[in-house]
Amino acid sequence: MLFASDNCAGVAPEISQALARHADGMAHAYGKGDLDREMEARLAELFETEASVFFVGTGTAANSLAAAGVMKPGGMVFCHSEAHVQVSEAGAPEFLSGGGRLVPISGPLGKIDPQKLDRAAMQTPRDFNHLGQGVMATITQASEAGTVYSLEEIAAIGEISAKHGLALHMDGARFANALVKLDCTPAEMTWKRGVDMVSFGATKNGCWCAEALVVFNRDLSSHFQFLRKRAGHLFSKTRFISAQFEAYLEDGLWLDLARHSNSIGKELEATVRDSNRARLAWPSDSNQVFFITDQTHAEQMKSKGATFHAFPTPKGMEEDIGENEQVYRLVGAFSSTSDDVKQFADLLAG
Amino acid sequence: MLFASDNCAGVAPEISQALARHADGMAHAYGKGDLDREMEARLAELFETEASVFFVGTGTAANSLAAAGVMKPGGMVFCHSEAHVQVSEAGAPEFLSGGGRLVPISGPLGKIDPQKLDRAAMQTPRDFNHLGQGVMATITQASEAGTVYSLEEIAAIGEISAKHGLALHMDGARFANALVKLDCTPAEMTWKRGVDMVSFGATKNGCWCAEALVVFNRDLSSHFQFLRKRAGHLFSKTRFISAQFEAYLEDGLWLDLARHSNSIGKELEATVRDSNRARLAWPSDSNQVFFITDQTHAEQMKSKGATFHAFPTPKGMEEDIGENEQVYRLVGAFSSTSDDVKQFADLLAG
Amino acid sequence: MLFASDNCAGVAPEISQALARHADGMAHAYGKGDLDREMEARLAELFETEASVFFVGTGTAANSLAAAGVMKPGGMVFCHSEAHVQVSEAGAPEFLSGGGRLVPISGPLGKIDPQKLDRAAMQTPRDFNHLGQGVMATITQASEAGTVYSLEEIAAIGEISAKHGLALHMDGARFANALVKLDCTPAEMTWKRGVDMVSFGATKNGCWCAEALVVFNRDLSSHFQFLRKRAGHLFSKTRFISAQFEAYLEDGLWLDLARHSNSIGKELEATVRDSNRARLAWPSDSNQVFFITDQTHAEQMKSKGATFHAFPTPKGMEEDIGENEQVYRLVGAFSSTSDDVKQFADLLAG
Amino acid sequence: MLFASDNCAGVAPEISQALARHADGMAHAYGKGDLDREMEARLAELFETEASVFFVGTGTAANSLAAAGVMKPGGMVFCHSEAHVQVSEAGAPEFLSGGGRLVPISGPLGKIDPQKLDRAAMQTPRDFNHLGQGVMATITQASEAGTVYSLEEIAAIGEISAKHGLALHMDGARFANALVKLDCTPAEMTWKRGVDMVSFGATKNGCWCAEALVVFNRDLSSHFQFLRKRAGHLFSKTRFISAQFEAYLEDGLWLDLARHSNSIGKELEATVRDSNRARLAWPSDSNQVFFITDQTHAEQMKSKGATFHAFPTPKGMEEDIGENEQVYRLVGAFSSTSDDVKQFADLLAG
Repeated sequence: MLFASDNCAGVAPEISQALARHADGMAHAYGKGDLDREMEARLAELFETEASVFFVGTGTAANSLAAAGVMKPGGMVFCHSEAHVQVSEAGAPEFLSGGGRLVPISGPLGKIDPQKLDRAAMQTPRDFNHLGQGVMATITQASEAGTVYSLEEIAAIGEISAKHGLALHMDGARFANALVKLDCTPAEMTWKRGVDMVSFGATKNGCWCAEALVVFNRDLSSHFQFLRKRAGHLFSKTRFISAQFEAYLEDGLWLDLARHSNSIGKELEATVRDSNRARLAWPSDSNQVFFITDQTHAEQMKSKGATFHAFPTPKGMEEDIGENEQVYRLVGAFSSTSDDVKQFADLLAG
Repeated sequence: MLFASDNCAGVAPEISQALARHADGMAHAYGKGDLDREMEARLAELFETEASVFFVGTGTAANSLAAAGVMKPGGMVFCHSEAHVQVSEAGAPEFLSGGGRLVPISGPLGKIDPQKLDRAAMQTPRDFNHLGQGVMATITQASEAGTVYSLEEIAAIGEISAKHGLALHMDGARFANALVKLDCTPAEMTWKRGVDMVSFGATKNGCWCAEALVVFNRDLSSHFQFLRKRAGHLFSKTRFISAQFEAYLEDGLWLDLARHSNSIGKELEATVRDSNRARLAWPSDSNQVFFITDQTHAEQMKSKGATFHAFPTPKGMEEDIGENEQVYRLVGAFSSTSDDVKQFADLLAG
Repeated sequence: MLFASDNCAGVAPEISQALARHADGMAHAYGKGDLDREMEARLAELFETEASVFFVGTGTAANSLAAAGVMKPGGMVFCHSEAHVQVSEAGAPEFLSGGGRLVPISGPLGKIDPQKLDRAAMQTPRDFNHLGQGVMATITQASEAGTVYSLEEIAAIGEISAKHGLALHMDGARFANALVKLDCTPAEMTWKRGVDMVSFGATKNGCWCAEALVVFNRDLSSHFQFLRKRAGHLFSKTRFISAQFEAYLEDGLWLDLARHSNSIGKELEATVRDSNRARLAWPSDSNQVFFITDQTHAEQMKSKGATFHAFPTPKGMEEDIGENEQVYRLVGAFSSTSDDVKQFADLLAG
Repeated sequence: MLFASDNCAGVAPEISQALARHADGMAHAYGKGDLDREMEARLAELFETEASVFFVGTGTAANSLAAAGVMKPGGMVFCHSEAHVQVSEAGAPEFLSGGGRLVPISGPLGKIDPQKLDRAAMQTPRDFNHLGQGVMATITQASEAGTVYSLEEIAAIGEISAKHGLALHMDGARFANALVKLDCTPAEMTWKRGVDMVSFGATKNGCWCAEALVVFNRDLSSHFQFLRKRAGHLFSKTRFISAQFEAYLEDGLWLDLARHSNSIGKELEATVRDSNRARLAWPSDSNQVFFITDQTHAEQMKSKGATFHAFPTPKGMEEDIGENEQVYRLVGAFSSTSDDVKQFADLLAG
């Protein structure tokens, strides 16, 4: 089980301890407990602004509720063509938003090309009810390709979104990995660059099921309360999501965990770079590393215990991939070790 | 926080330990890990039959997916007029089933009157497309009124459901409480009496978020896989739901916990019966006890630390309730103690 | 085919002529033609206020779009328990509004009891996200029981709706029949009494498919444009709905047709009153008459050419109906004649 | 209003006469009248096979119900990237199918490239619940680009659809135009080539609102009955859709009308071919002709009375279009005349 996904990792000890620490006693259910309120406030504080915070258990729930919250009839959500919402959520954003449409926008390295977003958004003028109406753009930070949008890139997309009246959402399933890469504050990476909502993910980074939809608009609070409940995503014992966040945010645990998995990413990148059996598909900014190797070799590695997934060849890269070759993804987890990397390096060397 | 709800309780130590025990190491994500498969099999075994098992995090999700799984256009789900799906899920069953309708059926003591179900189902003949078409009946066991359907009562509803081509679902948010009351096997309380699907709830009974939709029909397996994923209810680290079930089912923990909360129910019932400030609204079969008292007195008790909720006066009981009186609900939790009951008794005595 | 329904009638000659008159030439499609704009304005003028008008082809579409236009997550629409939306639209209002719930409110003679509406609406306080949130009330004018709300009754419901923040919708499938009964203006029967939206039906009253959702709030215009299009209810050759309305409203044709069918109602009522084989179930205010007779006799009448439908016994009337008796509905159409009534009278006399 | 769309045309005299002819008398409502039954049978006969027929009023309704009829959770419908369902129905197929996704497939000349369909369908293996599951492919015949799939091309897509378990739907908004071009029978163009459902459109070809969803699978009949009703698309006076079909199919009127509009297409094509101010974008197979000209010239033509729409530059044609040029669409209607073409020719000549 080496490097298949950060979803395959377990739970950091601090998170387990928090769950146990809050196991006793009674608390108000359905998000009305003291700890829930405290952690909602803690998250708003983290973002240095007024914000409504909605705890849920899956990233798909957070992303889909974001879309649902701003949906209109015939509504269109612009996302990258490789985005998780587009390729890995089985239609949840469309279904949970009551029939919205995802409009895939391409762009190199897993990032939306701002000009293509602009062109796509222009095709839905306000009073033309045939195609549909744009309601939201969503970017993934860090992206599904392991890259990270720079602050300027986010700002550019923020401006185009504002120009077209689109809410801007950030899928932060790997928010911490991007943040430590950019070495900036959560505010700088989000609302200060035009982001309206963030799926603040903690699950992949050492929690078991802790996701928060953070909405920088308190007016929408009541609306999202109902959206979450109606989708079955309001936990009765919410305090155990709050408990995870308590430990996650304490003493910078979340940043430490992300720094660690990013450093594993760096080690994996170096391993591939040094190998004569594989080459990097493109540079990594985070804990996800993409490499190209021979399919036969990959299968052999898997048969000896490596566990990693093939990745669809990105548009425009078709010619760079040999006939028997394939792009593969490696993901460093909070719990991955340098020993794991060495083991992988040995397998890669064959 | 005395007796407001079993949702206000925390987590049993055995469950916490299981969560911690599985925190290390890597496992396949999205329900494909060894422990997930093992616990799915374990649950089917518990029910002594072939069954598909779908872990989710909330009872609302389990109930709604059940409805979604058998939904048709214009589909109608018959439920008790006080059922959780009807009064406490903010339209989730309707929404997650793509627009199905709940049809409330009354009946004394929180239980569907089989004859009324029969009559309601008769109003939707197969080829009459104006009203809609019946697709499912759902009963809550133990019911929202703290009562428990007898095996004969379940069988009666099972027969009527079969007669009208309705799938029969059991909302088992308090499945264990009913089971120990009836002192029968899970099979005897479900598919042997005509039940097709069970929301097997463990959250209220000492877990933090462990619910399983158990479907006694393996053919629907692929369908429900997609339904769950599309609703955002497939956890990446599902193993931590499985881990809760592992501990929950081990050495009869689940039955012990339910026996305990039921016994707290008995103590609460006795307390009310012995009181001259209150009277029982109706007899309890489980850990939920309903009593009638003066609203002013109730408010005083609350101001001194009791936490319990008012309960809407059931149809037909209006005349039994005095002008300043109200029905209230008490719920014994797995963690409630006889000391808590004594504290409550003192408050009740005023 | 005597008196089964005004839906069974055909089309008034003036309407047919209008369809033929506009058959030639080219016009902008999808509601943007000159005639479309003209008739939208004509309808607003009829209501003596600013209004957005949306032509559709079925009453179900108009009613469902009204609900969709004000829907929120967990949204509840209060309607009479015998309302068309509740018993005859196969879940369309729920489906087309994205999962809203209809909440049936009882009341004598097919009319909502204002106090019951008030009580039901009170059960959904703003910030309690478990039950759901009230969004709309809808009344049918004339009602499904052939009665007509008085202006005072409409105003009473308008006040309660406003008090609870509910939009008030009027299902005017038989708007004209009610209007001529009350002998007032469209404005007096609607927005001047608190009505926010009207399904202005012309189909039952001599058109073939002409319905208009009239919204007394121009801000919602763009929203409804998309709602209609997204539900597949925007006709390409909308001009032929407009053409129907042109003839319908010209020289008071619509009022004449309604006066005629109401007078047929009066004749039918007199026929029943004078009969010793049947009795009136309740007095009629419009073109719908409800009578009680022996089921065997009714079947004999049907076998000899009468075509009328049984009507579910209204709540509270169970004791008034003998064991072998049944309530039946008669509907006078724009095209019904006094000869038809005589034929029916002969059959009734046996 | 020259050549903007066949939707801008009115109604053929034979259709108007049929509407008037059936205006008198009573008939069973909601599709249960004699004429309705007769015309359903007539359409099945036309296709020389068992078929269920569902009359609706718009093409969007027919297309969307087709998708709804075979939808599954996470369901994906493969369509051409320029298909009407994709670019002109404001999300109706997604919404009315309960959240399905349209997956655009490119291909030259408005026709799906079978190999690309094959590749796209391969990405959704049966038991992989992350991306979604393919449920349907849909082709437009004649296509939105005015081209017509050959019988071999339909068969090729039929085979790929069958291979992947996809239902194959044909959007026949211009079915007659394609049929007369191919000079074959309806059966040969549909189910004999693997088509499972057809939106049989008559509106564009001289009717006012007459569309039929023809399903070559009688088992689905009850399902579609409810789907149509629940979407608000069951007309009470359905007989007037049936009446349109009666005239439409009588004595080959439909084929004559299509032959005429196709011949207008040929005249328009010749006009463009002979012009030195414009050139054909690609050859036309039907009544739609696409040409390229200077935008300034186009605007001048419009200011003098021509009414035609710009068409988005198809993928891969970008380099063929000069900087100030644009692709435009002309559509010959059943009612267009050679004089209209001459008028257009004069305007084009400037």
